[in-house]
Amino acid sequence: MSDKYKYMLDEKDLPKAWYNINPDMPISPGPVLHPVTKEPVSPEFLSVLFPMRFIQEAVSTERWIEIPEPVREVYKLWRPSPLIRARRLEKALDTPAHIYYKNESVSPVGSHKPNTAVAQAFYAKDEGVTGYTTETGAGQWGSALAMACNFFDLACDVYMVRVSYQQKPYRRIVMQTFGAEVSPSPSEKTAFGRKVLTDNPDSLGSLGIAISEAVEAAVTSNGKFKYSLGSVLGPVLMHQSVIGLEALKQFEMADEYPDIVIGCVGGGSNFAGFAFPFLHKKFTEGKATRFIAVEPTACPTLTKGPYTFDYGDTAKSAPIVKMHTLGHTFVPPGIHAGGLRYHGMAPHISALCHHGAIEAVALNQLSTFKAAVLFAQAEGIIPAPETAHAIKAAIDEALKCKEEGTKKVIAFNFSGHGLLDLAAYDAYLQDELVDYAYPDELIQETTKDLPQVSEALMTE
Amino acid sequence: MSDKYKYMLDEKDLPKAWYNINPDMPISPGPVLHPVTKEPVSPEFLSVLFPMRFIQEAVSTERWIEIPEPVREVYKLWRPSPLIRARRLEKALDTPAHIYYKNESVSPVGSHKPNTAVAQAFYAKDEGVTGYTTETGAGQWGSALAMACNFFDLACDVYMVRVSYQQKPYRRIVMQTFGAEVSPSPSEKTAFGRKVLTDNPDSLGSLGIAISEAVEAAVTSNGKFKYSLGSVLGPVLMHQSVIGLEALKQFEMADEYPDIVIGCVGGGSNFAGFAFPFLHKKFTEGKATRFIAVEPTACPTLTKGPYTFDYGDTAKSAPIVKMHTLGHTFVPPGIHAGGLRYHGMAPHISALCHHGAIEAVALNQLSTFKAAVLFAQAEGIIPAPETAHAIKAAIDEALKCKEEGTKKVIAFNFSGHGLLDLAAYDAYLQDELVDYAYPDELIQETTKDLPQVSEALMTE
Repeated sequence: MSDKYKYMLDEKDLPKAWYNINPDMPISPGPVLHPVTKEPVSPEFLSVLFPMRFIQEAVSTERWIEIPEPVREVYKLWRPSPLIRARRLEKALDTPAHIYYKNESVSPVGSHKPNTAVAQAFYAKDEGVTGYTTETGAGQWGSALAMACNFFDLACDVYMVRVSYQQKPYRRIVMQTFGAEVSPSPSEKTAFGRKVLTDNPDSLGSLGIAISEAVEAAVTSNGKFKYSLGSVLGPVLMHQSVIGLEALKQFEMADEYPDIVIGCVGGGSNFAGFAFPFLHKKFTEGKATRFIAVEPTACPTLTKGPYTFDYGDTAKSAPIVKMHTLGHTFVPPGIHAGGLRYHGMAPHISALCHHGAIEAVALNQLSTFKAAVLFAQAEGIIPAPETAHAIKAAIDEALKCKEEGTKKVIAFNFSGHGLLDLAAYDAYLQDELVDYAYPDELIQETTKDLPQVSEALMTE
Repeated sequence: MSDKYKYMLDEKDLPKAWYNINPDMPISPGPVLHPVTKEPVSPEFLSVLFPMRFIQEAVSTERWIEIPEPVREVYKLWRPSPLIRARRLEKALDTPAHIYYKNESVSPVGSHKPNTAVAQAFYAKDEGVTGYTTETGAGQWGSALAMACNFFDLACDVYMVRVSYQQKPYRRIVMQTFGAEVSPSPSEKTAFGRKVLTDNPDSLGSLGIAISEAVEAAVTSNGKFKYSLGSVLGPVLMHQSVIGLEALKQFEMADEYPDIVIGCVGGGSNFAGFAFPFLHKKFTEGKATRFIAVEPTACPTLTKGPYTFDYGDTAKSAPIVKMHTLGHTFVPPGIHAGGLRYHGMAPHISALCHHGAIEAVALNQLSTFKAAVLFAQAEGIIPAPETAHAIKAAIDEALKCKEEGTKKVIAFNFSGHGLLDLAAYDAYLQDELVDYAYPDELIQETTKDLPQVSEALMTE
């Protein structure tokens, strides 16, 4: 048995193709519907928002889709990322389990997000677009897209949820360092933003509002700007598959294979990117791996939200997809895992969860911060609050192994570091954080106004 | 020629011994003197402050000193660090030069500082000490020592310059996450701190004051605490040599050898750690490498300070060493490269610079931020403001190559990332920063009160 901590791949081992789960889905993730007609959208409608290559990927049934060389060249700035055996954490837990984490925090912006941002930026550049509009909450996604647009000489127009813009300036500065234009949302730049501000001049914004603004800005740009989304959609999940594909090779180096694969879920992209290549092995080789998607009790989309059709945004201007959802009017409480506050969930993950191929668990905020501090003290790296959810779930499984005396291999995706989220740690260390579980009554309230979709589509 | 970006070593290639430059010094770095008697100190005096093994390293004339296995085990959490060919920066500059950087920002706290913090923590633990006291400015050093003490189950008592404690909470939170006790300095915890506060209740503190407090806290702890310094001293420089030793192997992989080796200097440890192994090659194999130490014009220790004996701290309680100094009463202006504001310089670097083995250059703040933004946009990583000095010097040399049409190999140490220094970038991007060169008249003023050392020692 190896005594290594880090399993590193060479640049030449960087995957040449992404894994597209479409042909392997045990049930359909459902069609994408037009927000007004509520009928399946045409590629023409989507092409106002997305580059054509992105749309083609969404409907592709090819299992392997080539990673364009200019995208691989950028990936090489930090990829392949390390797979790390958390030996010190194992020791701290005194567990017979082997715990591994794929360290996506090594990207320049500190998270997995650039894996899709770079691909999307290349597609836009390749199709002659001027730039992207996008939304961002705490700024993980915005800073990834800002960096990617900078690499491909594209403009980047970011709508940042106002409360984050005001309270979390660091990622705004990252975006601006990469030349992006960052506006607090709601903004005066869009009709929807102005409407929100007229109704409520003190609005602190929400991800749903910011999406609506970014979509509007792209739609009204006469084709100059496309709109970029950092999670939820099939191609985004697929671009992230580079994580799991590398991890598969690295587990071969370690001569082990995970019994349990864990990731946190907001929109679902880091979980999907890590887990889907292992799911492929399960589907094709019958591997008996368990998959656990971890969400906060404050935003319990998979564990409490109905599996149905809903709008992607608050203004009902983004496409409708089939997903576990808390309703597009869901207003998340102020938990610190800003990346895990989306009302919906990637249709692929929703379908897989509904089907039973993956499990979902919801965790309280305080327990995840406690796990994060334990992890930092053992392994050195301070995790993002989102990542802390995956860590807590991994620790729980490792402690079960200790109780049972079983030596399972537990793998989780370390989606990002917390160096730009330290204010949350400060609040935790000073006992200012509280637990919060989103109440069932509120879910009933916010899922009242779901779009009415034809019976045929509902049961498809 | 390779087309790689990153030259990675395996954990088994982690150096087994540090390089000690003592036996290769072309001139003596001078003795360490007692702050009161001004005579060479005894090991007994130093042993109140430092672990015995650290003191032995300071006077050792062994060229290679074994890295203890527990230290190597911790290094393996992030080491060996990558050597990166900055291909995108070369392209942005349109230079024939090859630019490489050793990426020390991959450590959990984002800088090279843990290389010595881990060694010092192990020595203290091994000798049965309870913990360390130390000072920190912006917090790079404090967070490294806090992490290291946490790994070896030691207490860590940090005196953080008050203005940084108040304005830069992020690294304080990092330290606290690792369980360290962080006090704003001047503090009520020490006699010297109380004296400063009595004289000036609003004192914002300085590195010199914080050193005095940390030294006092160790000296008055009845042997429970030792004092840890993150730069300047010989053993600290030696612990950092792991950087250059790895880089030597990585340049072999790249089949190149640097013509110019560059590092920024505050106390001097990151420069020394990167450059000394290459200097060894110069001394022993006659390699014609140039060495450039880069400092800010706001703290021009090497370029303007006299080479003489001075106290290490403001209270005159730390040992006296021979160095380039702006005087121990030097109060640095508020430049953002907090790590480059020490009044003195490592005696080894001072001696080598005095001797002519290395060159020194001072750069203005605005030019370094401009270089940092150019670097970030080309390579993705946002540099620490300190590191930006090395980058600017490397860019200047690369542009000279372009002018001259020469294809030199330029290597610099990327000592840390700037993700916890983004407020400085914000100020730069909003045109709020100004250039400042420390005036010669003030240097004359602050070097008036240097310790009077016997003629014999001066000319030794």
